[in-house]
Amino acid sequence: MPKTILDYDTVALDDGDSSLIIIDQTKLPNDLVMLHLRTQKEIYDAIYLLEVRGAPAIGVAAAYGIYLAAKGIDTDDYDEFATQFDAAKDYLASSRPTAVNLTWALNRMRDVVTANKTESVAHIKELLLAESRKIQQEDIDTCRMIGENGLTLLHKGDGIITHCNAGQLATSKYGTATAPMYLGQKRDYGFHIYCDETRPLLQGARLTSYELMSAGLDVTLMCDGMAASIMKRGLAQAVITGCDRVAANGDAANKIGTMPLAIAAKHFGVPFYICAPSSTIDMKTATGDDIVIEERKPSEVTDMWYEHPMAPKGIKVFNPAFDVTDASLITAIITEKGVIYPPFDKSIKKIMG
Amino acid sequence: MPKTILDYDTVALDDGDSSLIIIDQTKLPNDLVMLHLRTQKEIYDAIYLLEVRGAPAIGVAAAYGIYLAAKGIDTDDYDEFATQFDAAKDYLASSRPTAVNLTWALNRMRDVVTANKTESVAHIKELLLAESRKIQQEDIDTCRMIGENGLTLLHKGDGIITHCNAGQLATSKYGTATAPMYLGQKRDYGFHIYCDETRPLLQGARLTSYELMSAGLDVTLMCDGMAASIMKRGLAQAVITGCDRVAANGDAANKIGTMPLAIAAKHFGVPFYICAPSSTIDMKTATGDDIVIEERKPSEVTDMWYEHPMAPKGIKVFNPAFDVTDASLITAIITEKGVIYPPFDKSIKKIMG
Repeated sequence: MPKTILDYDTVALDDGDSSLIIIDQTKLPNDLVMLHLRTQKEIYDAIYLLEVRGAPAIGVAAAYGIYLAAKGIDTDDYDEFATQFDAAKDYLASSRPTAVNLTWALNRMRDVVTANKTESVAHIKELLLAESRKIQQEDIDTCRMIGENGLTLLHKGDGIITHCNAGQLATSKYGTATAPMYLGQKRDYGFHIYCDETRPLLQGARLTSYELMSAGLDVTLMCDGMAASIMKRGLAQAVITGCDRVAANGDAANKIGTMPLAIAAKHFGVPFYICAPSSTIDMKTATGDDIVIEERKPSEVTDMWYEHPMAPKGIKVFNPAFDVTDASLITAIITEKGVIYPPFDKSIKKIMG
Repeated sequence: MPKTILDYDTVALDDGDSSLIIIDQTKLPNDLVMLHLRTQKEIYDAIYLLEVRGAPAIGVAAAYGIYLAAKGIDTDDYDEFATQFDAAKDYLASSRPTAVNLTWALNRMRDVVTANKTESVAHIKELLLAESRKIQQEDIDTCRMIGENGLTLLHKGDGIITHCNAGQLATSKYGTATAPMYLGQKRDYGFHIYCDETRPLLQGARLTSYELMSAGLDVTLMCDGMAASIMKRGLAQAVITGCDRVAANGDAANKIGTMPLAIAAKHFGVPFYICAPSSTIDMKTATGDDIVIEERKPSEVTDMWYEHPMAPKGIKVFNPAFDVTDASLITAIITEKGVIYPPFDKSIKKIMG
């Protein structure tokens, strides 16, 4: 059997802890290319160019990236080390300024440096390696528990619609929305997955359908406007998507096209589930109205593959990256800490302590 | 000002009535190419290759096409003429067997031949020219009345979402869903049109946004999954689409992606209108469940522009050409005979006499 992406980690250190190995996601689904990144510039570019993408995967890549930078700092002096560390950290942080996990992982690594001022630089480097491995292991554990919790809501033979890529390629392992699918696959659930292509950037077509098919799941690709027909035909027992941010009241921001999927699910009586690490719940965001939605460039809509214009020159374009699904449309939010049900304002407060 | 498609007829005879001139819709939006079709093979190919498309436009092209064939038949003998006419008719009819208007127009032209057995062949040819012009004029009148009737439901400054191409390019003039937009444009309604790109074949991006922009309307292109965000932001006061077939109970089949648009419109309280010539209402189809939905080839979804695979090789694909919007989701059906409101079973019966 040829190897598939599931035989590789999305992000990993090599055996000698001297380079970062990633799957180049810009080459999928046509070519499975592993990149070995050694320099800070190479790691910066990989994040900037979306060769590695997905909030958890970016966090892990950043942690390993700053570890490699730290390892290469040639000094025994703490202050000199810390200065050079911060320069590398600022550089990596600028590769994708809006990626929350990037800054979060880099700050967590910086905390190790700060907390160990009295240790030798050599020992701090060991502690940084341990911390970066821990960040990855926590990601794996979180995704696995999301899978376990999600699986309690599903049944053998279920048809499941998903949108965008909240898959293994966005995390270290299992993915979030895909975690119940992968665990179910191991336990003979026989799911039928229906995967939205997810315009404009086609993460569903390029990534999700690819990784699920690689894993041997039964997966069918469709255009975003076809999901409602799957529901109408009684072929879907659940819709499961990932999520970029959950507000304190349960409103959830996710890839554009998620919200109409939730509306159709409600119309047809199909449960709509959001999978999200509890770190995605932002108690400082009261409701979805407080979430600023990024507007992206028109060419994503007008020039697929950046070669053939498929719309008239100069046409105005509406291209929001996300939409916000109202809490009233969400059946449950699946986290590593458990499944959260409405009323979300109360249940979220409870689970977030 | 450079000429735009609105300066041309979608389908027309040249001044000498010796060739059929069409806009080559496969070249839009990048090139505005007029084709002059003389031979039956050229006309067959234009229909087969979708260089001319849209039910009414195909009907008109077929009528002119069979007239040109008849004109070229070199005999004064009625029986010989009728035999050659039928051969040409069968040939053209086979160019797109599922297009109802194609057969309808060809049969209507044949009726002229049948009804005028006693006339000279030369005179029959004149009658055929008159009949084909009449078919086109009726199409223009029907679309204009759909526009007039639709305009009574709209207000100055309205935002209007549309899907696929039920535009001038699908008819002789005005289009169906676009007819109220064009008439409103002439009367300073100042509409803001939001146009779904309409995956998989992108008729919205390639055709509708092009023709509306050419006409000087304010039009914004978006991916299909973005329409709900336009509604949520309060930017749409109506959704207007065309329609392929209306059942006797008001269920309406139209391009895939129409149904989830209607569900979202209901969710956000935005009126959802179908524009359709009354000939689209099929009293023999009791409900939408009786409409067979054509499944099209996977490559439309996986290989945009037929060059770059954007999905894994061998992936299963769901690619229905149409979906059926339940009558309960439709605010009104706009026809040339008037606006039809629920309960549709009664109002349709009434308007259809």
